[in-house]
This record gives sequence, structure tokens and C-alpha cells, in this order.
Amino acid sequence: MRPIVTLLTDFGTADGYVAEMKGVILSGAPGTDVVDLSHDIPPHDVHAARLAVARYWHRFPPGTIHLVVVDPGVGTARGAIVVASDERFLVGPDNGVLSPALLRPGALALALRVPPRASATFHGRDVFAPAAAAPARGEPFESLGTVHASPTRLRTPEPVREVDGGIRGEVIVIDRFGNAVTNIVVRQPGTVTVGAQAVPMKRTYGDVASGDPLALVGSNGFLEIAVRDGSAAHHLGLSRGSVVRFLADG
Amino acid sequence: MRPIVTLLTDFGTADGYVAEMKGVILSGAPGTDVVDLSHDIPPHDVHAARLAVARYWHRFPPGTIHLVVVDPGVGTARGAIVVASDERFLVGPDNGVLSPALLRPGALALALRVPPRASATFHGRDVFAPAAAAPARGEPFESLGTVHASPTRLRTPEPVREVDGGIRGEVIVIDRFGNAVTNIVVRQPGTVTVGAQAVPMKRTYGDVASGDPLALVGSNGFLEIAVRDGSAAHHLGLSRGSVVRFLADG
Amino acid sequence: MRPIVTLLTDFGTADGYVAEMKGVILSGAPGTDVVDLSHDIPPHDVHAARLAVARYWHRFPPGTIHLVVVDPGVGTARGAIVVASDERFLVGPDNGVLSPALLRPGALALALRVPPRASATFHGRDVFAPAAAAPARGEPFESLGTVHASPTRLRTPEPVREVDGGIRGEVIVIDRFGNAVTNIVVRQPGTVTVGAQAVPMKRTYGDVASGDPLALVGSNGFLEIAVRDGSAAHHLGLSRGSVVRFLADG
Repeated sequence: MRPIVTLLTDFGTADGYVAEMKGVILSGAPGTDVVDLSHDIPPHDVHAARLAVARYWHRFPPGTIHLVVVDPGVGTARGAIVVASDERFLVGPDNGVLSPALLRPGALALALRVPPRASATFHGRDVFAPAAAAPARGEPFESLGTVHASPTRLRTPEPVREVDGGIRGEVIVIDRFGNAVTNIVVRQPGTVTVGAQAVPMKRTYGDVASGDPLALVGSNGFLEIAVRDGSAAHHLGLSRGSVVRFLADG
Repeated sequence: MRPIVTLLTDFGTADGYVAEMKGVILSGAPGTDVVDLSHDIPPHDVHAARLAVARYWHRFPPGTIHLVVVDPGVGTARGAIVVASDERFLVGPDNGVLSPALLRPGALALALRVPPRASATFHGRDVFAPAAAAPARGEPFESLGTVHASPTRLRTPEPVREVDGGIRGEVIVIDRFGNAVTNIVVRQPGTVTVGAQAVPMKRTYGDVASGDPLALVGSNGFLEIAVRDGSAAHHLGLSRGSVVRFLADG
Repeated sequence: MRPIVTLLTDFGTADGYVAEMKGVILSGAPGTDVVDLSHDIPPHDVHAARLAVARYWHRFPPGTIHLVVVDPGVGTARGAIVVASDERFLVGPDNGVLSPALLRPGALALALRVPPRASATFHGRDVFAPAAAAPARGEPFESLGTVHASPTRLRTPEPVREVDGGIRGEVIVIDRFGNAVTNIVVRQPGTVTVGAQAVPMKRTYGDVASGDPLALVGSNGFLEIAVRDGSAAHHLGLSRGSVVRFLADG
């Protein structure tokens, strides 16, 4: 079986940076399957990258190597790490972007050695891509660096339980369709309020008329605010951090 | 030979949805070549997706599995189908997006079973990706569902012959360069009119000066309206549905 | 080892053009690894494509076939070429886009035969993709055409040495982050001036405060003008051709 290296960056593809990284991986580990996940993470948005990693890292087969380069601190003292977690490997900056794998019990992080001739501004090509190619060509994980006991771990903010038994959460990301994903996990019917507006809770988009708002349980179990055939972010004025409340029925 | 699964969606790549789908495919059918075709279909634009599918589905080798997820009706009662047509397989919602393969004689459609634990909003991950992985790992087509006798078939509108012998067609899609592709098939020289403006018919862009409009036979045989080094949509005010007339010479 | 064909175009992916090309390659050379590099080159921007090719073409393994279709002259008398240079192959229009490989000593260019039934407007599908598939399935390079003694070679403009010993260069490209890459190669500290504004020279972005400008040596050795956590193009009013001066210390 060919090794798999996935790529998540905020580089876009117009400049040739991603192309350089792919060349380094395929030269360093011929016969690798390089799989694009995204190069459209908003520039320097560690938060959005972390939430994307949370979605996908564990869905790939054991042995997959996930390369994540969203790295506003490139060239500063921030470290570079490689993580082994539940039979997958992840490579990236030590800025929290790999947290979903780091927070899994048994995860092990190593501090990557930065090659002395690495450029100051393009660690994606000079540090991370070579580090992803190494296990792809069969080098042992342990050879990549030394144990890092306290890598940066970021967490999604927890919702708060209020005195009336309701839950006060917040929008944690707006997706491409304008859906607002919250940090509230819901398992029963209830009332959803966004600002002063009650939003009906439904099973799916088709349960309301075109242009109407709804709340629903999204594909990863979190409460989402949507507008059918429209953008909830636009129509309801939502952005990351907007407060959303949920009060269970009964 | 490794199986090929192609991907066409309107998900963009910034959110991690496409990444989840790729993980599901590669976990379900290790050793598959997953080939991105587009994730930039305009959101919910079944029409644009159908026209893209028409371009590419038959150019891939026999055995290819085309996964198409442009699905404004996700979670409603719309069905999910898998199609076998001329030695290729196609998987997607039953909303007409797979019409180019369904309209080929001998095409066979099955109604996909929706797994009971599928999310209401992300059938790309929970229904369609597993269905694409099944033939990729060698499961027989027939095992995927039961015969669907009347899947949704959409057709490009036909142009109309007018009393003077001319043809009245319309713009069916604007491409990224601003070229307006029509539904008129042309095999001889003639006069092209867009609104009140005559547009000269040429063999290629280079046959007019920069900034000038032209009509030409596009790469799939349809009449296109273009502006050299510019956007015909912008300069001539064209959009989907704009009327274009053709009158053959002589 | 499977052959590698990389793709660089200005087609975007929304229309199905790239999908058609991939189908042609995989039908013509089954078992090829098709690797996307970019489809987001600004439309018709031969210059941007050439600079991207310069970044990546040599980082891929020997034997790689680079397909580059940024082709404002499609259908005109401009030629089509295939290049063998330092064990890599490159296929594209003869408009200078392959210059980085052509300028390498020992490079050999052939004039591609254009198939008589090629469309006038989509040589990517009808000329270049088949030409990339041929060596991928093992056909000898020499069979692709006849020697072309004078293919178009474009060069980045050279900076000018001024009477005070300073170097006057220019911005050659703005990248996605808004960094302005110049044509000045720097190997020692000095003073950088953009218009009337002195910009401090630093090792990396983190060496200035957020929002402040800096000059640094980029990942390919060229002087770049950047703004930490911002766009130098926007904040300093830079675009391609903007003058940048460098005066070495001492």
C-alpha cells in the first residue's frame, strides 16, 4: 500500500508554494499519494485550521500522515512538531493547529529539528514537507525529533449553563455556505435564540421555506444556525463569537 | 490498476467537508486514486454541475467512479442514486445532476439505501462517499440498491427554428473567462446576433483585436460568444438565458 | 514507479475544463499520478505562470512531466512545445511560460504536432494533455515532434546598479499574502527603500510588530517587502513594476 500524505495550508495555489512542497514530498518519498485537503484556509487562521483538522484527521486510514501548515509564526521561536496519535501522524507548527490529535489519550509529540539551511519564511517546504516525507519512506517516527512534553493545545470554548437551565454557547466558525456552527451539543428538542430572535429547530434545511432561518444538529453533532438557500451569517448578522442560546423543551 | 474516484462538489475546501469525504473513501477503499475535479461549483447550482458532468464523465477510463455532490435537497425526500452507464459509474443525488450519463442508452440507475445513522445534512460523507467506495473495493454494482425506473433527467433547453430559417437559442452557462456558451450547434458560417448587436463569427480569439467581441464554435461544438482578452458576459451584458440568434449564410 | 504528470493552468475548476484534461491524461496513460499544482493562475498571466514554474519544476523527481496551460494565444499561430530539461519534461504553449526549464543548459525543445481535429479553443484538452500522456505511457520523447531551435524564452528583468553603489530593482510578483517579491538578490545587510520610505531589513516576519513593514530575504533568495499580519501591496501601494532600492551597509 502506498503511503498517504494529506495537505492543509493557507497558501492558496496561485504562487507555486504548494507546488514546491509537493515536489519536496514526492522527491523525498517517491510513490506517495499526496492528497489535497485545502489550501484555502483563511490566511493565518489557526483556529479555522484546527477545526478543519478536528473534522478529518481520524477519518483517514491508520498510517496516514497529515501535513498542516497554517503558520503565522514562521521564522519566530515557535516550535515545529510531529505527532503520533491513534495510528496517524501529524506534522505542523506548534501553535495549536494539531490540537485535535494532541488531545487524544496516548498522543505523543516530538519537537522537530529545523534543518540549519531552512529558509526563515518557508518552513512548509524546508521543515514540514521533509518531515512528512520521512515516515512516508519508512523512517521511524522516533528519528524525527525529541519528545516534547507540552505542545500547544487549543480547545474550543465550552458553552455555559445558565440559571434557567439553558445553555449559552457561541458561534465557533462560519462555513462556506454561511452556516454558523456553534459549540453547543444538543440531543433533544428545544428553543434556540440568536440575539433576540427565536430560530425554529428542525431536522434539515428542507423543513423550512426558502429564505427562512432554522437551527439544526450539524454533521458533527453541534448545533448550527442556517438559512435555507441563503447565508445565516449574512441574514442574521452572525460571526465567530456571536452568542447562541438553547433551552431544552419541557 | 487502482480504481479511480472523481469528486465534484459545491463545498469549497475551506471547511474540511471535502477532507472528511476523502477520508471516508480512502478508509473504505484503500489504494483508490481520488481525483479532484471541482469543489467550486456555485453553491446549490445543479444546472452548472450537470453541464460540467456532461463535459467530463465519458472522458475518463472505463471503470471510473464519478462522485457528484451538489445537493440543495440534502435531508429532504429527494433520493440518492448510483448510475451505471457505458462502463462508468456515477453516484449522487437524484436531482438531475447525473443526467448526462442517465440519458445515454442503456444507462441503469439504482436507488441508494441511506444508512440509518446518516446525518441529515451531510450525505456527501455519510451516503455518497461510502457508495463510491463500495465498487472501488470490488463490491458488485447491484448490491448498492434497487432499480430506480424514473430518476430525474434534466435536459439543456433546445434552440428554436424561426420563420426566417434562423435559430434562436440562449446562453446556457458563463464560464470563468466570461465566455457565454449557448445551446446552438453550428456547422457552417453565418451571422450571430446578441440582442441588437451583430457579432462576427470567427475561428478563434486571435482573429479579432483585443477587446472586440466574436462568436466561435467552442470545444464541445456549441456556439460561444466571447470578447478577446475580456469578458463577454460583462461587455455584452450576457447571463444565463440571454437570447442569441444564428442565421446561416446563403 | 507510476509516472507523474503535474498540472498548472488558469482555468479555474468550476467549468469542467480541467476535468476534461484529467480524463484525457488518465485515459491516455492509465496508472498516472496526476498532481494539481494550480488552476488559479490569473487568467492569461504568462508572467505569473512562468514565475510559478521557476519555483517548482526542478523540485519534482526526474521523469516528472509538467503540463502548463496558460495560453492567451490558443488557436493563433503560436506554437506548442515539449521540453526535455535536466531529466524532467514540460509541455505547454510556446509563449515563454516554460522558460525556467528552457534556460537551463542542455534543454531541448520540440515543436508539438497539433492533431488535425483539435478544437481551435481548447488545446489543453486536445493538444497538451495528449502530449503529456505520451511519455507517461512510455512513448519516446523524440516521437512527439521536431526540434525547435528558438522557442520563446522570457527572463525576469535584471536589477540595475546605480552610481552610489545601490541596486535599483522592481517588484516582479505579489503573492497571495500581499508580499511583494522583487528581482533583487541580497546576501548582506543593507537599507531598503520603497518610493520615499525606508523599510527595515529583518530575518523574518516576527521581528517587527504586527502591522509594521519589513524587508526580508524570501524562500528563493530574492528580497521581499512584507507587512506583518498584513498586505504590503495594500499598505505600501505596491504592484508589479514598483521600484525598490537596496544599498548595502558599509
